[in-house]
Amino acid sequence: MLQPELKLRRDKIRSLMAQQGIDAALITCNTNLIYTFGSVVSGYLYLPLHSPALIFVKRPNHLNGEHLFHIRKPEQIVNLLKEQGLPMPTKLMLEGDELPYTEYVRLAGLFPDTEVVNGTPLIRQARSVKTSIEIEMFRRSGIAHAKAYEQIPTTYRPGMTDLEFSIEIERLMRLEGSLGIFRVFGRSMEIYMGSVLTGDNAGYPSPYDFALGGQGIDPALPGGANRTPLQEGQSVMVDLGGNFNGYMGDMSRVFSIGRLPDEAYTAHQVCLDVQEKVVSMVRPGVACEELYNAAIELVSAAGFADRFMGTGQQAKFIGHGIGLEINEAPVLAPRIKQQLEPGMVFALEPKIVLPGIGPVGIENSWVVTNEGVEKLTNCNEEIIAL
Amino acid sequence: MLQPELKLRRDKIRSLMAQQGIDAALITCNTNLIYTFGSVVSGYLYLPLHSPALIFVKRPNHLNGEHLFHIRKPEQIVNLLKEQGLPMPTKLMLEGDELPYTEYVRLAGLFPDTEVVNGTPLIRQARSVKTSIEIEMFRRSGIAHAKAYEQIPTTYRPGMTDLEFSIEIERLMRLEGSLGIFRVFGRSMEIYMGSVLTGDNAGYPSPYDFALGGQGIDPALPGGANRTPLQEGQSVMVDLGGNFNGYMGDMSRVFSIGRLPDEAYTAHQVCLDVQEKVVSMVRPGVACEELYNAAIELVSAAGFADRFMGTGQQAKFIGHGIGLEINEAPVLAPRIKQQLEPGMVFALEPKIVLPGIGPVGIENSWVVTNEGVEKLTNCNEEIIAL
Repeated sequence: MLQPELKLRRDKIRSLMAQQGIDAALITCNTNLIYTFGSVVSGYLYLPLHSPALIFVKRPNHLNGEHLFHIRKPEQIVNLLKEQGLPMPTKLMLEGDELPYTEYVRLAGLFPDTEVVNGTPLIRQARSVKTSIEIEMFRRSGIAHAKAYEQIPTTYRPGMTDLEFSIEIERLMRLEGSLGIFRVFGRSMEIYMGSVLTGDNAGYPSPYDFALGGQGIDPALPGGANRTPLQEGQSVMVDLGGNFNGYMGDMSRVFSIGRLPDEAYTAHQVCLDVQEKVVSMVRPGVACEELYNAAIELVSAAGFADRFMGTGQQAKFIGHGIGLEINEAPVLAPRIKQQLEPGMVFALEPKIVLPGIGPVGIENSWVVTNEGVEKLTNCNEEIIAL
Repeated sequence: MLQPELKLRRDKIRSLMAQQGIDAALITCNTNLIYTFGSVVSGYLYLPLHSPALIFVKRPNHLNGEHLFHIRKPEQIVNLLKEQGLPMPTKLMLEGDELPYTEYVRLAGLFPDTEVVNGTPLIRQARSVKTSIEIEMFRRSGIAHAKAYEQIPTTYRPGMTDLEFSIEIERLMRLEGSLGIFRVFGRSMEIYMGSVLTGDNAGYPSPYDFALGGQGIDPALPGGANRTPLQEGQSVMVDLGGNFNGYMGDMSRVFSIGRLPDEAYTAHQVCLDVQEKVVSMVRPGVACEELYNAAIELVSAAGFADRFMGTGQQAKFIGHGIGLEINEAPVLAPRIKQQLEPGMVFALEPKIVLPGIGPVGIENSWVVTNEGVEKLTNCNEEIIAL
């Protein structure tokens, strides 16, 4: 990552810090280090409001550079700051929603005379509006993601289970450059690369606030394919995370085994209509809840409200911000007054689960532009018969 | 998971709680819920010292059972405890090394008159000695892991990169039932399914305390294969996590492209000798450092100390406890006085990196028995020519 880009990102954070009277940040969680330092290290980025960032690295041992210091433990940071002539901060932010309790307390203890606050919401706010380089990374990710999805029909063999189908698509994604790993904000939600759901497994209630969950194959990881055979007349939805460069592109597509009942095509078209309607409304200044409400109105009028975003347990959103994590701000959900801004990137995923058939619908990744919106994931949106 | 097994596990935790005067635990992190409740949910297991555990579930919405309550938020827990006639705890433990700071503070705030302590070390201690059912799950995992590894040579094609080879082996693992996900204790270490390392990439310094790291293909996930072509005269080590049922079995095997220089076979044999020597010493009561020191002595005598467990950045351990996470107690490292106990499960991984050739060595998973040790991962240990 080029230094001017990192400087730009750090300055986005600094600008929000200044508004809250915060004069330094100590950043150590992986996604925030990718954002501010350009790569994952074991270490700490110290970001003062008015002077250059310093990076303190435990591992790896081969890095060097201006403002880079090798340390064994965080207790060395304070003396190094003093040696650099930096004052102790008056108000410091730590990643309070991400750092484990004991680690937060340990780091806060390094600054006994400093007010320490939770900086996670601020950093998430900064990250929610992407830079032009980040948007370009999403575009590239979307191209690779689409290239993998276009090959999906070649992997289908009659008699396959959803899990076997998932495995072949995971392989396609990896061959197109997917890093594989699926990063989620928050300690709880875990998923391997994503989900491939067919038939009634798509309506299986998830422990998480996912659009569609699936049972999975083991209670140790309850999500995704559950070894349901892919059967004539059933749909299968592929929703794998497109992490090709750190940025979590999100795209879902639906396939059918043979022809589906007519209702499935109707429901799928309703989801495409929701996408078209919502996207037509996207512009800077629109509130997230307006998009959600428009979607619900359309789905209700079409008679699918009870099967929209799940059946037994319905997700209460139609889309979510994406970035280095799959669940960034903003969230397209009821009662969310937050307004869209140029540079925000989100996934929009209207989906309907049809009992006895399976999931239909669509998911694409989008970036808010000055004028409206740009699609980041371009790939056939019809139900493709396998 | 059967109730008597869950009861046994909870009682292992209770027994340690009693020693520390702790009269209740509130457990919510995924691995600890798998351990005490048998599956991942969004929710909380409340474990009193002297009465049955209660489970409070946010999601999924379809669970039910004795002592199970559906809640929307943790603030409801206290009233539900009172309705059940349970006293407020005097000393409560939370997962302080795992819960984010803000979540820990929120949960602690539910019990304003209670002393709240960090329970993570205690739970990890309980989990470090496996039950007979957990050991059986490791045995089954080891069989599936070996079955996948035995098929590795069939996936090799001349001209492949390490990454392409890795992708085919990930697929084999998934087809044999791997859940894929790689669970690590601590917020920092991330890895997709494991690593496949060839040539000098095996010595690339990692941000983490891994035996061998690798550069990876993107700074957003610096580890593993880096698109090095698999070349004649180079070795390749496969080290994928064997998560087939929640338990992270660990096994590494070495392959060669054609024949390697003689030094590689010598070094590999040294690692096998280290394994044999260490395993011969394993019994209840032996201190971890004794095993480490014996390994270093043998490797030093053989002249490989400077390339043992890496080159530029050497890992300072020869093995680690495994369980629901890849890095459990105990650690086979210098100055660790902890003694092995029957039921402890660990990976032993003496490895040597040869510049210009690649990694050699071995890794297996083992369980400490009353008499000595049992191998959980049985698979050809020679260097297999592809």
